Order: sequence, then C-alpha cells, then structure tokens
Amino acid sequence: MENVFSSLFTFDSEFIKESELLKWLDARNRANEFIVKPVPFRELDKWKFNEETGYLQHDSGKFFSIEGLKVHTDFGEVPSWEQVIINQPEVGILGIMTKVINGTRYFLMQAKMEPGNINILQISPTLQATRSNYKLAHKGKTPLYLEYFIDRTRSTIIIDQLQSEQGGRFLRKRNRNMIVEIKDDIEVFDDFLWMTLGQIKILMQYDNIINMDARSVISCIPFHLAKDKKEVSSHDVKSKSDPKMIASLSDDVNDIYSLEEQLSWINEQKLSYSLHIQQVPITQLNDWQITPTCIRHKTMPFFEVIGVDVKAGNREVSSWTQPLVSDRNLGLIGFIVKEINNKFYFLVQAKVEPGNIDLVDMAPTISISNYERFAELSGTKPFCYDVFKSANPGNIIYDKIHSEEGGRFYHLQNRYMIVIDNTIDEYSIPANFRFMTLEQILVLGQYGFFNIESRGLISCIDFFMTKI
Amino acid sequence: MENVFSSLFTFDSEFIKESELLKWLDARNRANEFIVKPVPFRELDKWKFNEETGYLQHDSGKFFSIEGLKVHTDFGEVPSWEQVIINQPEVGILGIMTKVINGTRYFLMQAKMEPGNINILQISPTLQATRSNYKLAHKGKTPLYLEYFIDRTRSTIIIDQLQSEQGGRFLRKRNRNMIVEIKDDIEVFDDFLWMTLGQIKILMQYDNIINMDARSVISCIPFHLAKDKKEVSSHDVKSKSDPKMIASLSDDVNDIYSLEEQLSWINEQKLSYSLHIQQVPITQLNDWQITPTCIRHKTMPFFEVIGVDVKAGNREVSSWTQPLVSDRNLGLIGFIVKEINNKFYFLVQAKVEPGNIDLVDMAPTISISNYERFAELSGTKPFCYDVFKSANPGNIIYDKIHSEEGGRFYHLQNRYMIVIDNTIDEYSIPANFRFMTLEQILVLGQYGFFNIESRGLISCIDFFMTKI
Repeated sequence: MENVFSSLFTFDSEFIKESELLKWLDARNRANEFIVKPVPFRELDKWKFNEETGYLQHDSGKFFSIEGLKVHTDFGEVPSWEQVIINQPEVGILGIMTKVINGTRYFLMQAKMEPGNINILQISPTLQATRSNYKLAHKGKTPLYLEYFIDRTRSTIIIDQLQSEQGGRFLRKRNRNMIVEIKDDIEVFDDFLWMTLGQIKILMQYDNIINMDARSVISCIPFHLAKDKKEVSSHDVKSKSDPKMIASLSDDVNDIYSLEEQLSWINEQKLSYSLHIQQVPITQLNDWQITPTCIRHKTMPFFEVIGVDVKAGNREVSSWTQPLVSDRNLGLIGFIVKEINNKFYFLVQAKVEPGNIDLVDMAPTISISNYERFAELSGTKPFCYDVFKSANPGNIIYDKIHSEEGGRFYHLQNRYMIVIDNTIDEYSIPANFRFMTLEQILVLGQYGFFNIESRGLISCIDFFMTKI
Repeated sequence: MENVFSSLFTFDSEFIKESELLKWLDARNRANEFIVKPVPFRELDKWKFNEETGYLQHDSGKFFSIEGLKVHTDFGEVPSWEQVIINQPEVGILGIMTKVINGTRYFLMQAKMEPGNINILQISPTLQATRSNYKLAHKGKTPLYLEYFIDRTRSTIIIDQLQSEQGGRFLRKRNRNMIVEIKDDIEVFDDFLWMTLGQIKILMQYDNIINMDARSVISCIPFHLAKDKKEVSSHDVKSKSDPKMIASLSDDVNDIYSLEEQLSWINEQKLSYSLHIQQVPITQLNDWQITPTCIRHKTMPFFEVIGVDVKAGNREVSSWTQPLVSDRNLGLIGFIVKEINNKFYFLVQAKVEPGNIDLVDMAPTISISNYERFAELSGTKPFCYDVFKSANPGNIIYDKIHSEEGGRFYHLQNRYMIVIDNTIDEYSIPANFRFMTLEQILVLGQYGFFNIESRGLISCIDFFMTKI
C-alpha cells in the first residue's frame, strides 16, 4: 500500500483541519437524535427467554442469543466456572474504504451511534454490517457503501481478514475485517468523512472516540509493507518519530525469534491446554440469577445482561429494543514493550478463553475486568499487574480509555496502556508469554491469531508519538 | 533455508548413490519381519463396540475411535449423507530432521512399516509420533530422535505447522508438521538414512515409496524462500529445470491475484457454505451395517472399516491389533496447472468436507474416491474430470500412485496427477475454484489452509522434471 506513512503525518487535509475534528463529531452528535434507556426484560420487543433452549433470544432466531456456559480448563488459576455468553454465529463485515486523493491517502470514517456507547456517537468504519443487516433482516435500508465491499469490480482488496471478537464474552464470534481501495469518485454522505491516518491517530489520543470496530480494522493496516516506510526518517516530522517503534516493523537476523519460531511457539501453546465448554440454559447456571431487569452473578460484581430501549434517527431502523452486556467497572488492557537492540518488542500472552475458536489466542500482556479490584476479588495478581498499576509516567507510551462495541456492550470501558519495561528478562517469563516484533504481530495477525484486545491496542500505536 | 535447490539436484551423495536407494529400502524390508492379517472384530484385543457411545473404541479411551456421522451441507451435489469417521483428537508430530553436511543439505528419512501399507515398508519422516506414542501409552520405547523436536535447545525450527488430515475420513484431525535443523553429529540408527531432496524426489517417481506423512512434511518446505533459488538457472542441471514451475515460486505485480486477494477469496469461501454434522452411534446409521468382519455401506462400494492383527519386529511394541479404514478402489487426486505469462498457476478448489476444522479447506482441482466408477456411481462428473481421464501424455507433469497413511488406512491408494491444461479460462471457472501461484500456496499453506490431498500433490512437484 502506498502513501501510508505520509498519511500518518498529515494532520490538516483538504477535507478537514485537525482543529475541526472534534467540532465535526460534535455537530454530527447534535444532528442525530438518540435516546437509550435501560428497561426490564418484559419491555423488550420480540426478545424472550426461550422455554425450549433456556436462552434469551429474538423471536426470529436472528441476531444473537444470550446463553449459559459451563467452562472447564487447565489454563490459569480457576479450573471451572459458569458464565453467560453471547452467541452470534453469523459473520459480519467491518470495512473501511481508502482512497488516494491528490496524493494523500484517506480513510472514509463514519460518525455512528451505538446504543451501548457511553457517549452515544463514535468514529466507526465505513461499513459495519452484520449479515442480518445486509440481508435486510431489519427490513430497513441497505447499508451505505456495501457494494464496494462485496462487488470485486468496484475496489481492490487491501486486507480481508477473519478476526475474532472477545472470547470471554462471545462464543466463537468472528467478523471479516476489510480495507478496500477505490479509484471512483463517490458521494460522501452525512456522518461520513475522509480522514488521514494522522487524524485518526489524533482522535485516539482522546477517550472513547474511535470505536472498537474501527480499532480492529485499523490494527490490520500492513504498516510493515508500507512502500513509504523507508522515507520516514528523512521526513520533516522526523524529530517526532520513534525509531524504536518503526524498527519493530522490520524483522532481521538479530531478532530474538524468527517468524517460524513464533509460529512454532503458538502451535505449542495451542497444544498445551485443555478447554471443555458446555452450552446450558441460563437457569441451569447455579451461580447466576435472572431478575426482572438483569442476568447477573449471584455474589460477584461481574458483567450483567440488561435490556435497553433505543430511539434513533439515522440507523437502519428508527427504534428498537435489545439486550446488552453491561459492565460499569473499568477493565485494563495493556502491552509491555521492551527495548532490545534499539527495537521495541511486545510481550504477547497466549490465552485460553471459553469462546475462542481455536483454544488459544494471542492476547496483550494483561487483559482483565474490573482492574482496580481484580487482585482483591480474585486473590491473585496477573503477571506484570504492578508494572501497569505503578508505571513511571516516563515509561508510558499510551494510556487512554476506550469503549467496547456499543452494539453488544453497555458502557463497557477499558483502560488501554502500552508501557515500557526494560527490566523484564526476555528468557525468564512464564511459558505462555513471548516477546514479538510488531512486524511478526502484523504478519501472524493476518491469519486471526491475535484477539480483539491485542488488536485494539495495536491500533493505538502512533509511530510519531503524537501528543495533544 | 540454505542449500535447498542444490540438495534438489544432488542425486548421488556420500551416504548413498541414487542407484542404491531402492536396494537399501529392499534390504530394510528384509531385515524387518511384519505380518498383517485381517481378522474379525471379535479377535481385536481391547478394541470393542462401546455400548454407551456406540463407537468402536480402545478400552483405554486412547488412540482413536470409529464413530457414526450424519452430515448436512449445501456444498456440492449431495445435501446429506451418513458415514463412519475416525475421531482422533490428539495432535501428533510428523517431523523431519535436516542438516547440512559437507555443504550438502540432507533430510533424515526412515524406512518404516505401517500395517495398512500395501508394500508394508515406506519412506517416512524422521519422527512420526502420536501423543500416545510419546507419552508412552504403548508402554514401549520412546520414539527415536524425539528430543530434537521437543527440546528447543537442540535444533532450529525451519517449519512447525498445524496441518489437517483427510476431512472426509477424520473428524477435525491435525498433526504438527515440523522440520528442524540440527548442527550436532548424531547417531544414524538402523532404518534411518540421510537423503538429499533430489533422492527423495527420485523416489517419488516410483509408486508407493514415500509415505503420506513424509509427503505432508515435504510439501511444507519453503522453496519460495530458499536462498539458492536465484542460482538455479545458472546451474549445470539448467537444461532439465522447468522455468515455469520455478517462476511459480515468485509472486510479482503481473500475477492474476495478489496474496491479499487470495486470502479474501478463501474467507469468502469459508462464509459461503453451511455444514452441520452430528456424531451418532454407528448402529444409528441407517445406510451402514456392522458385520462380524467389517463396517460397510449397505448398498454402495464405499470404504469399509476392518480389523487387523499385526506382528512386527521394529515397532514400539512387537504385536498388536487395531481397526483400519479399507478402500480397495483407487482414488484420484489431481491438480490442473495452467501456463500464464510463463508461470504455472495451480487450480485450487475450496472444498467442504465433514471433518474440516474450519468448514472449507483448499483442495486440489479434483479429489475423488473410486475414480474409475465415480461418474457411474454418483451420476455426476466433477469439474475437470475428463481432463484427467483423457489427458494427453505430453501434458502430464506427474502421474504416480501413492498410499494414504498406513497406520489408519488399509491398502488405500490414490492416483496423483498434475496435468497442464492451457484451455481453461481463468475467469470462467466455478466460484469455488481459483488459480494460485505455488508461492501463494506455500505462504498460505503455513497456516493450515491446504488439505492433505493438496499437500501430497505439492510434495510431488519436481522443479527439475526428474524422470526415471
């Protein structure tokens, strides 16, 4: 892909200036009416606890269902537990359209509301369509720009990857993450805007602006293959660039592991653990209860399932009700990076989660719910917990709060951190941890090995260390 | 990897001359006593039809079991059927050790017997170990050279890939295909021999010499990354080399599809079909019957499950009984290649099989059982069937017979063919077919997209068109 790094250091463009970005988002927010109200389950329309399956389901059988799950595994501290989980077997498209206009590469982003977003409207991909969406199960409008993603004569594929979503909350869910390049002039509709990569990265310096789906697609951009990677050091923003992060985009013979060794380690990890899951009616979970307003754990402050009533102006249908997974407690998602031979290495964790498609996914160094109380509630401290909790500000590369997908999660936020720790010995870490270069993460990432939490963090990396 | 192509054109080595290869195999055959006899199920030791599960299983619960399967799919001509299938959830290692000795690259191959081999002894990888094997479930010896594959300080990983086996006969079975490079001098035990790649390719010009596991591992050799690839044209065997096949090892901007477009197409294929399978007791299959000596389809000449009694000299244990899947009818596994811009493209089929791990695997152009009677029995002709059946000898690149894995299959042979057909229009083929370069197959193959049938054929490619 051409003009990638040059897009990354373009902050003002012919479409919008950096200083106008938040104002544009604000204006879109005001232009769109959107009211979300938690309601008891009995007020949900067509969503019922199905007597036959014991799941919370839509009458049509479409969309998704909330199910009970019993989990047994030899991974981690807890050998078995019960939980509810979202089952959404259909694969949707998360797609961003890109175009080079007058020599500058742009990405068509959308200001899109989702009922669970804490601030209602966030920056989303061009297209965010479930299969029900684009097969018109909503009986509403066809999603805008869909044709550029499914008609191969209208665009060139830059990336098209099957990527998983939260294995702790979804049962084997995947979406197709796509970036397609167009040559045609297209109409830019309300709520859409051509942005440079620099502008997207600027917006990532704010909390809760770039939504989860956009982060996931952006994480797949093949920076390691960018044709203008080598021109970075000679550019005028050179003084702001971080050579250790850019070095991490290239593999060389001095790397601590080759790509083949990383794949070998991943395969070893996939064969190291067992996982047995059993889908059961929610009422068969001993530790969970269904109240008129939520499904929740009986004793622990875990996530809950609630119902919401939504009134919206610019969505495919104008109002609806649905369940959402709610979690008011801030989680923590963090990568440790270490500088070795002037190159950043990311400390990746091989992690078993009950909804994973192939048992083990590559996760960030840490990813936990309710992180302030995690040690107290679980009685254990995850590896590197204290490194994040008491990081020296000078070692913090990134530290912002982002929301998880507002179409399924209600007010669920995580603190996203990337922290330098040069004191960790790369050969004395737990067996399910491994240092990898960013190039290795991007190459292996194409084939779906990295989970949504790790992809979300990767998307936040700013090669120029932009600060606002 | 270094010295790959030079190994490919080394036919006589310091360990053995080309002319002695078959004699060595013959001598190994005579040195090892091995008698295999089909027996009724009641003569199997510890293998029983389990009354609770309805499967044919070993008393220990280890090894594998033979189960009933009901299949529903919208792929292909037959919407639903019943069959028996082998369930072997554990992942074994198929590994070849490689070493550069006096400037020549060698692979340590083993003359190994398997009860189902039509000629008893075939050339196998250095290590062929199920997890039961190397956890000593046989209560026999530890497999030779195992330590070089599991102890990371003793070798360098060249490849380590999780690869599937026959999705039509195994339920989600995978093995770890490994090549490790060693520097140490090692003892070469009886039945083992250092061979060059050229010698292995020579042996592939004979029927039933190189076994399925060896073919699978050899297919993973990253020829596209070989450091001496560029030296090929200037070498003295230049006149014998095929520039169109070597050109297929490099991608360029003139290729009909980019790697990203191929991955996109694979993802599209994975989302295009449905498959529902249900594991059932064998007795619940309406179309199959259990006789005292076999499990077979009531009316059609499909594969059968039989029992065998094995007496062997050099295996981990000296005698045993086990079930095997028997098929006396020759199958056909074939790739069509087309010459476009002086480069060979392989016609790959996206194929749904009931035991596939992720619904769709990349398969050869054709892969059918009982190919002589296929059209008559099924009433349909697969795409390109006649191209293979009546290929002009001048267009046949490869045409030999090989056995499938003799530890699970009894006398199961397939005709392996690679045939040039330049008359096929690359844009007017069925939606689930696609032309790919060999480099694309090798790159995507690392991540397990290509099935055992396609890998087996890839392993037979001889860049120098060796003829015996």
